[in-house]
Amino acid sequence: MDGPTERAPLSADPLPASGAWRPGDLAAARRFLTIATDRPFALEGGGVLRDITLAFETWGTLDADAGNAVLVCHALTGDAHASGPSGPGQPTAGWWDGLIGSGGGLDTDRYFVVCVNVLGGCQGSTGPSSIDASTGQPYASRFPVVSIRDMVRTQAAVADHLAIGQWLAVVGGSMGGMQSLEWAVTFPDRSRSLVAIATTTAATAQQIAWSSVGRTAIALDPAWRGGDYYDAAPGDGPHRGLALAREVAQITYRTEAVFAGRFGRGVVDPMDDRFKLWQRFDVEGYLDYHGAKLVRRFDANSYLVINRAMDLHDLGRGRGGIDLALRRIQVPSLVMSISSDELYPPPQQQLLRDRLAAQGTPCQYQMIDSPDGHDGFLLETDQVAPPLAAFLADVEKHDA
Amino acid sequence: MDGPTERAPLSADPLPASGAWRPGDLAAARRFLTIATDRPFALEGGGVLRDITLAFETWGTLDADAGNAVLVCHALTGDAHASGPSGPGQPTAGWWDGLIGSGGGLDTDRYFVVCVNVLGGCQGSTGPSSIDASTGQPYASRFPVVSIRDMVRTQAAVADHLAIGQWLAVVGGSMGGMQSLEWAVTFPDRSRSLVAIATTTAATAQQIAWSSVGRTAIALDPAWRGGDYYDAAPGDGPHRGLALAREVAQITYRTEAVFAGRFGRGVVDPMDDRFKLWQRFDVEGYLDYHGAKLVRRFDANSYLVINRAMDLHDLGRGRGGIDLALRRIQVPSLVMSISSDELYPPPQQQLLRDRLAAQGTPCQYQMIDSPDGHDGFLLETDQVAPPLAAFLADVEKHDA
Repeated sequence: MDGPTERAPLSADPLPASGAWRPGDLAAARRFLTIATDRPFALEGGGVLRDITLAFETWGTLDADAGNAVLVCHALTGDAHASGPSGPGQPTAGWWDGLIGSGGGLDTDRYFVVCVNVLGGCQGSTGPSSIDASTGQPYASRFPVVSIRDMVRTQAAVADHLAIGQWLAVVGGSMGGMQSLEWAVTFPDRSRSLVAIATTTAATAQQIAWSSVGRTAIALDPAWRGGDYYDAAPGDGPHRGLALAREVAQITYRTEAVFAGRFGRGVVDPMDDRFKLWQRFDVEGYLDYHGAKLVRRFDANSYLVINRAMDLHDLGRGRGGIDLALRRIQVPSLVMSISSDELYPPPQQQLLRDRLAAQGTPCQYQMIDSPDGHDGFLLETDQVAPPLAAFLADVEKHDA
Repeated sequence: MDGPTERAPLSADPLPASGAWRPGDLAAARRFLTIATDRPFALEGGGVLRDITLAFETWGTLDADAGNAVLVCHALTGDAHASGPSGPGQPTAGWWDGLIGSGGGLDTDRYFVVCVNVLGGCQGSTGPSSIDASTGQPYASRFPVVSIRDMVRTQAAVADHLAIGQWLAVVGGSMGGMQSLEWAVTFPDRSRSLVAIATTTAATAQQIAWSSVGRTAIALDPAWRGGDYYDAAPGDGPHRGLALAREVAQITYRTEAVFAGRFGRGVVDPMDDRFKLWQRFDVEGYLDYHGAKLVRRFDANSYLVINRAMDLHDLGRGRGGIDLALRRIQVPSLVMSISSDELYPPPQQQLLRDRLAAQGTPCQYQMIDSPDGHDGFLLETDQVAPPLAAFLADVEKHDA
């Protein structure tokens, strides 16, 4: 108000309509597998896909008996690049770079680590921005709803391709933890253990609420065009909607205390002259930064699809409820919480631990003491590493 | 995805561009005062306004010595109708109906209760939807940024008009509490006491962050048109943006536990056939309901202006800091917290209590035990009433 001053634009350079990786871009460390070439892949929600490409990365060397393979599963806006630098074709450094590497908590001198970009994603795996061979056009609004189970079933195809009959462990945080739980329930014989961090057995009403407002933000952006925006001119994609979805999520990923300590009431735009509506406090500049950063490397439709998959996450669906589903998990489990996590609060993981313990499944539990909220699973690699390394070493000692 | 299914529309009937009350609508219980008719009202942020209308309501009878007057201050989307039914010209029942009334915690048989729609509001007081006499058009994008101090200074004009030299108490929760604190600091001699519930001495970075994403949601709606939408056809106002702002806020007003208990993973739209992107869980239906409800009675530009005033709230601005500002408060204070409030968490009110106590200001503190989060200050009137009634009775016993 008080004049037409608008919010600052997200970027000085016009951004492409989607931040997705496209075939023709540099592969960087990605490897690719195409499945469902002979017959369609039937999705849990009733849709079908053909010619599904899965982008994945690996680190380390697979043992002759394929007994040292660890699958790492990424969260909502992650990708297959869990470790390593950014560079051409790879917009981000590894999202678990502090954990995965030579001598790291997940030691690639010892383990063969695999990470697959999820089905529906936008960094090499088939998603809404991919070309539908049947039309020659991006799937866009025609991409089907996928579930965490669909993601896991496509990852199993990658395991087959790599001749990994049984993982030493499936490891993940947040949506990655949803996948590790689904792995253990869907394929009880295909992993020797399970590591689930800052996650839940079924998305709660509040988690769904947060997802929902993010989706609504994207749909509110006129540049989203019902999902059919891939032919938009640079600068004309649904950047503002995706950025807003990210800004909302970013607040839920951190905590009041961290924001207070880091930003307080500091200002980006001086307010001593005259108050204007769009002058920004430092915390607003931070949100803008994170929103603008995501739109450079992500696709709005992928955000919708993956975020919806998270809401649909329910280990008990079609299995007679969560307790019956969990009974399929007999392998040793390591469950971790982030002490300050308000989005996936510790009681949710403690309930999982209690249920596993009650049915006699060996279950370790570790609280990560962090002020950083949900993002602690990404940030506190120094605390995640020791219990993870000890757990994996312990699992290795037992016969496969 | 998976077909063009969109979110359900907010309303079956086309809504007017703004849910603001307009002159010509029924006054209902509103009374009006116009100020700044001779000379402009200089706002803290540098703007000026002329011919400011203030809509207010009163309940009870003012004593001959005007010693029983209590000012109640409303929160972000409240208005002057703090008590009484809804009806023609008044879209909502009183927002503190359970507290204010004959025999109530704020007993209108005993006290003369006043509530003023804030400057910048949309239920009778001058705000962005009001006609600017200098142009004959709504202020719209030209409405200046206002502050909590500006609101309080206009309320003082209402007190003058009613011949109330000194309030028995100024009472408010959330943004209403910001006003009660500003009253005590700006006009130390004009209130005999102060009641501040679920509020803060200065908006924190997280509170600003939540406000900011709400503003961004409104600005993302193409129907907002930079704030100049009042001539839009019915159905063409910034309803989706305002609704989204409300949906985000609504999540922060409640708690994970309340959502889990009330909604769980129940669904509005059956999902057993085929998963679609916009099928709604019950919690999404709830958010839609609250979004749609607000747009019927509120104005998007007022939301921007008032929400910005909350971010600018800082008792210490221009006063040498919060501690120096608080030294002006010497009157008895009652501070309350909501136990489950995650938006204005109890430590913020406890810090206020500690600061007041440390400087020798008589300060009572009451924790309201509620599962309902921030909205507990509106919902738990049965718990707010006893300490409030006892406090007011105690203040009355002492000489004015």
